[in-house]
Amino acid sequence: MKKVGVALLGVGTVGGGTYNILKQKREYFKKTQNLDVEVMHVLERNLDRTRELGISDDIVSCDIDNVINNKDISIVCEFFGGIEPARTFLIKALEAGKSIVTANKELFSKHWPELQEAAKKGNAGLYFEASCVGGVPIIRTITEGLQANEIKSMQGIINGTTNYILSNMSDSGVSYEDALKEAQRLGYAEANPTADVDGFDAMYKISILSTLAYHKRVPISRVYREGMTNIKSEDINYGKELGYTLKLLAISKNIDGKIEARVHPAFVKNNNPLATVKGSFNAVLLNGDSVGDIMLYGRGAGDFPTGSAIVSDIIYAAQRTEPYNYIIEETTDEDFNNDFFCRYYLRLSVVDAAGNFATIADVLGKNNVSIRQVVQKHSDDDTNTVPIIIVTHETKESDIQKAIAELVEKNNCVMNVDALIRVAQ
Amino acid sequence: MKKVGVALLGVGTVGGGTYNILKQKREYFKKTQNLDVEVMHVLERNLDRTRELGISDDIVSCDIDNVINNKDISIVCEFFGGIEPARTFLIKALEAGKSIVTANKELFSKHWPELQEAAKKGNAGLYFEASCVGGVPIIRTITEGLQANEIKSMQGIINGTTNYILSNMSDSGVSYEDALKEAQRLGYAEANPTADVDGFDAMYKISILSTLAYHKRVPISRVYREGMTNIKSEDINYGKELGYTLKLLAISKNIDGKIEARVHPAFVKNNNPLATVKGSFNAVLLNGDSVGDIMLYGRGAGDFPTGSAIVSDIIYAAQRTEPYNYIIEETTDEDFNNDFFCRYYLRLSVVDAAGNFATIADVLGKNNVSIRQVVQKHSDDDTNTVPIIIVTHETKESDIQKAIAELVEKNNCVMNVDALIRVAQ
Repeated sequence: MKKVGVALLGVGTVGGGTYNILKQKREYFKKTQNLDVEVMHVLERNLDRTRELGISDDIVSCDIDNVINNKDISIVCEFFGGIEPARTFLIKALEAGKSIVTANKELFSKHWPELQEAAKKGNAGLYFEASCVGGVPIIRTITEGLQANEIKSMQGIINGTTNYILSNMSDSGVSYEDALKEAQRLGYAEANPTADVDGFDAMYKISILSTLAYHKRVPISRVYREGMTNIKSEDINYGKELGYTLKLLAISKNIDGKIEARVHPAFVKNNNPLATVKGSFNAVLLNGDSVGDIMLYGRGAGDFPTGSAIVSDIIYAAQRTEPYNYIIEETTDEDFNNDFFCRYYLRLSVVDAAGNFATIADVLGKNNVSIRQVVQKHSDDDTNTVPIIIVTHETKESDIQKAIAELVEKNNCVMNVDALIRVAQ
Repeated sequence: MKKVGVALLGVGTVGGGTYNILKQKREYFKKTQNLDVEVMHVLERNLDRTRELGISDDIVSCDIDNVINNKDISIVCEFFGGIEPARTFLIKALEAGKSIVTANKELFSKHWPELQEAAKKGNAGLYFEASCVGGVPIIRTITEGLQANEIKSMQGIINGTTNYILSNMSDSGVSYEDALKEAQRLGYAEANPTADVDGFDAMYKISILSTLAYHKRVPISRVYREGMTNIKSEDINYGKELGYTLKLLAISKNIDGKIEARVHPAFVKNNNPLATVKGSFNAVLLNGDSVGDIMLYGRGAGDFPTGSAIVSDIIYAAQRTEPYNYIIEETTDEDFNNDFFCRYYLRLSVVDAAGNFATIADVLGKNNVSIRQVVQKHSDDDTNTVPIIIVTHETKESDIQKAIAELVEKNNCVMNVDALIRVAQ
């Protein structure tokens, strides 16, 4: 039986979940994987926490050299999050020939090439299944299950916090602010929710997943990012009337060798399998040229789901005789498409007067924006404006932006563009 | 770059799809996988077919020894289906040290131990991702993505033909016979549909998937199997009224070390993610003790989706330095639970007279069957019987069978048990 020594850097929520799985399942892994996985060192300042987990003080320290210099440790799992000291410690470990396992999407999306280089130097492996979509083995699906395919596109709900908030707004009609507070109360959102609600977390993940899927580097600087803090309940409701559900989507496409990647709120048709993904669940819909559409669905966060991905990576790493070889082309401007095609949902405050809709339609038409659906609402207030909702056909982002600028600046019939939300297909 | 020689045994629908993917993507695999995959021999009688695919006559024959004796061929892909000659040919190939890739669920579910032994003898690998759920990498998900988990249960729509028929019956209200004819016309069902509609295909697949998931042999003889040929439109409609969708489900569970596995029609609640799986799509919902619920969804059949799984297996096999080692415990009676717990939907023809419902409730109660929901319909015909629909709480299969026997034999109030359909949870 192969024996594998593991170090855990940090035993907070996910690190603790990982420790528990490794402890509880040691015999199970011997039996089912022919593998004896032993936690040999834990880097953690908080001794209350390590003692609560039942970890002997003998294997706890704050010195990374206790890990690097231990020849029996071949796999290092990192749970610090953020860039430093994770980056420095993991590079040290890789150069010393130890494979790394991590859920650190920020580090990985920002420093993958550097980590790759250190891995090459030490002939060690990089495993980061847990960095994207928690327990759902989306990375292994791409690298070991869909290799036959050129992956053409990816659409995902890959942030549980925002999906919880949007589901709550949609089901209960509460405002963004109230839904956020509720999510914070339940522990689904952090006190400072920026990483989630402004789309950073989803941006890190779609950068990693797109890089793997297209075999081309998709750095975060190439990912268009728009958060959900400005979403209004009334747009969720108008969307419902039109047969749409609002989600924070991560989308990427690889069309004729040009990649586009983006994170933003988007309406999806109610019959899109992503529309039914509720609460803190995540899902990713992939399209491969041979397999067609394929969807993975599951828990995107949490100590045990993410621990599941971490431990599965440990086992995968331990059973490989050679590190996994990610073949990724570096990219330039040429590889990206920044002016993407999309349908758009517009909510305009329009002065309630004859001829105004014709004016709007004219401005849109001149800018190559063609109208697919219109809803005009009656207004009971005394502002003399009415909301008009327009869903466009597929339109270039640059064209819709030009049309909007013209509507607002050059016309006195449109008082305001209250919402511009993309519509996924 | 690693060079890999492949033989294709048969180039029908899936074999032809595989050939096309390998041919069209040869450069792509060199670039993205650092692998040069070449088809070096094709076993096929039908020269019209091989010529149509553009395969040179030089590498086509009907003699397996042309494959076995070719030292440059390291992977043999089989597309014959059925037991012979696939079994004999693949055992020969394995013993000669060639890894095999196959979509043959019947062969694999019936002869896995024998193939495993031949593989061990030749130090060759067994790869059969394509045997279950077409292009969806469900096997790799279990073996390389969820190793950290003890998988507790599996529920799947793993036969596209029956799902197409049931979706059509449900959406259009047509009878089973008409839906079958339509499926046959469109090529979703075969002229002899037995393998699909009687549940054999799903039984082979759930046997393979359960064996992998639980690391214990689940032979087909242990899978309870009931087809869908007796399903009536009216039960689909009554189910709808109760908030259920009817599916042909493959279910297996591993509870306290006891396994149960079954294939039968089952109602699923409309909010179960499986309820929305329509047409010829497939989906599998797994529950792991760490990851929780996870679902995979995609095309379960077709030349390109299945070809995707075959070619992904070829790449996976070619990149391994050692064959994948399936660790599976052999099983005895002790490992299985045959008297499963389930909710049941019953449709009874009951004589329309006072006190009859009380009699029925009494018989059910005495047999430990407790009622969860009842719908009594008014009948306009002159038979003096009315349909009563009962959904039970969780009940032992043996108890419901006893109750039914008693209702029919010993009572003159129940004229007939028109339907007994399990309700999944």
